[in-house]
Amino acid sequence: MTSSSSSVLERLHALIAPDLELTNSLIKQHLNAEVELIPTLGTHLINSGGKRLRPILLLVAAKMCGYQGQQQALLAAVIEFIHTATLLHDDVIDRSTTRRGQATANALWGDKAPILVGDFLFSRAFQLLVGHGDLHVLQIVADTCATISEGEVLQLVVSANLDTTEQQYMQVVASKTASLFSAAAQLGAVLSQRSAAEQQQLARYGLLLGTAYQVVDDALDYSTTRETLGKTIGDDFQEGKITLPLIHAYSQGSEQERTFWRQSIEQNQKTADSLARAIELIRSRGSLHYAMERAKQLTQQAQQALAIFPDSPEKEALWLLAGFAVDRSY
Amino acid sequence: MTSSSSSVLERLHALIAPDLELTNSLIKQHLNAEVELIPTLGTHLINSGGKRLRPILLLVAAKMCGYQGQQQALLAAVIEFIHTATLLHDDVIDRSTTRRGQATANALWGDKAPILVGDFLFSRAFQLLVGHGDLHVLQIVADTCATISEGEVLQLVVSANLDTTEQQYMQVVASKTASLFSAAAQLGAVLSQRSAAEQQQLARYGLLLGTAYQVVDDALDYSTTRETLGKTIGDDFQEGKITLPLIHAYSQGSEQERTFWRQSIEQNQKTADSLARAIELIRSRGSLHYAMERAKQLTQQAQQALAIFPDSPEKEALWLLAGFAVDRSY
Repeated sequence: MTSSSSSVLERLHALIAPDLELTNSLIKQHLNAEVELIPTLGTHLINSGGKRLRPILLLVAAKMCGYQGQQQALLAAVIEFIHTATLLHDDVIDRSTTRRGQATANALWGDKAPILVGDFLFSRAFQLLVGHGDLHVLQIVADTCATISEGEVLQLVVSANLDTTEQQYMQVVASKTASLFSAAAQLGAVLSQRSAAEQQQLARYGLLLGTAYQVVDDALDYSTTRETLGKTIGDDFQEGKITLPLIHAYSQGSEQERTFWRQSIEQNQKTADSLARAIELIRSRGSLHYAMERAKQLTQQAQQALAIFPDSPEKEALWLLAGFAVDRSY
Repeated sequence: MTSSSSSVLERLHALIAPDLELTNSLIKQHLNAEVELIPTLGTHLINSGGKRLRPILLLVAAKMCGYQGQQQALLAAVIEFIHTATLLHDDVIDRSTTRRGQATANALWGDKAPILVGDFLFSRAFQLLVGHGDLHVLQIVADTCATISEGEVLQLVVSANLDTTEQQYMQVVASKTASLFSAAAQLGAVLSQRSAAEQQQLARYGLLLGTAYQVVDDALDYSTTRETLGKTIGDDFQEGKITLPLIHAYSQGSEQERTFWRQSIEQNQKTADSLARAIELIRSRGSLHYAMERAKQLTQQAQQALAIFPDSPEKEALWLLAGFAVDRSY
């Protein structure tokens, strides 16, 4: 199976269009709060053109599992609230000024409001889950939130440290990014009361998909091909973020190259030419290729995790989505 | 009944000493995480000599309600986790450098870690509640967390705005401070499966107690008596925080006085003499007295909310605790 990225997303949308519409209206409804700044700030980010990948994943997984109830859109909204809360806090922490081509909430309102509105969205997510009333669902989401923040703290601890191993990097990615994909996919099976094995395989699919997705994201930050598409590159390098291409290039580098990386990342001594040199080293050491190959393995494993399910349009769409994680804009 | 502050706290402690010890050991146990920075940072704040008022409130309320189970310490730990999470975020937001006479987490580790560890503590609190498995308890805590963050956003919105009404101020205090006291007290009755009326009266007691507590805290920030005890005063004035003494003094002030308040608070134009002038105006307009009288009314209402319960040592201790909110260090 091959497919262009846009048609994969279109195919996913087509499968669950009414559910996604309901999800969006629930998001809007439950963002409401007496204090107007909360919906204003929340809406700014939620309507900024995100792909809704995590809610879509939940909705398609539930449909694949033959879910017949009415709760999938509520849980999808919960997942998007949690995702949004983490983005609000991340942008404060990273001092990011733009996201999805728009000014970040912290750029527009300062740091205080996004911290608090993030807290509100976490709380609102749990209020909605309590209303749903399934302790197993609550457990999955609470565990996921703890995992996400633990992963974020781990990322902070290893930041600008070139001794970070590929394994530590993978742990950060699995915790801070992939765990929410995993929860979203798993909840599709949980809602449908499918077997523990099926729940576990969907959780595994989500984890591998989310990991591949982040590995590719991190790799593209060093991709000149991406630059020709008009996208910014080099953000991770400038922030001293330890990602897979960097770990690979550092481990493969000559002593001279390793000195460059230490100066740039650990001592934050960068010149106007540093990014160009970093990209050249990443290219010459095959580090971008290495990261993309790693992501490809992950997506293949993700696809294998779907084997337990009988064929269906939803399964095929999830299968394609895994490929899409790697194929997009490389 | 009269009593010095220290003996009130001692009396409360004596009633629930083993429960409080268990609470402290559960806090320590559940702060654990693979990433060491999480317990390090959490412990720094949790062990910094806070009075554990909220967990104590829950434990005493549960005992007053005749609770015979083993879950009170777990819920008390949850309440302390949520309190700690809000303090970590508050100190980042207020750029506070000291709390309880120690350096704040953000002063020691920067802003990033306390934001993330705060998120972790919220999540851990919900994990523990899911383990407890009572949806009514989960609902109370999730609602309280949403109320707290909503109150914090409201405080942000009205900050440095002298048009803030006493009613808006009271709403901020009820949401951001008193709601957690209210939940703590209510959970004592919920655990014990007491009637809705008793749950409601304990919730009301906690709300009024917490409100009185914060009103007094805010008033003491303008108290020269407090200054003679070696405590810092004037923080709220310097930060432009709108509190009850300020609202009263502004509303009662001459045109000249109101100009001073507008320059100091809304335009943040302060000189070396500004704080002394502010304290003098607060004194001469009787605004400190006004706030303390308001707090006294609240504590009396809190005491009345206990009327539904038969006499017991626990009830008497809660009755005294309400008085303590006003009597401490004025």
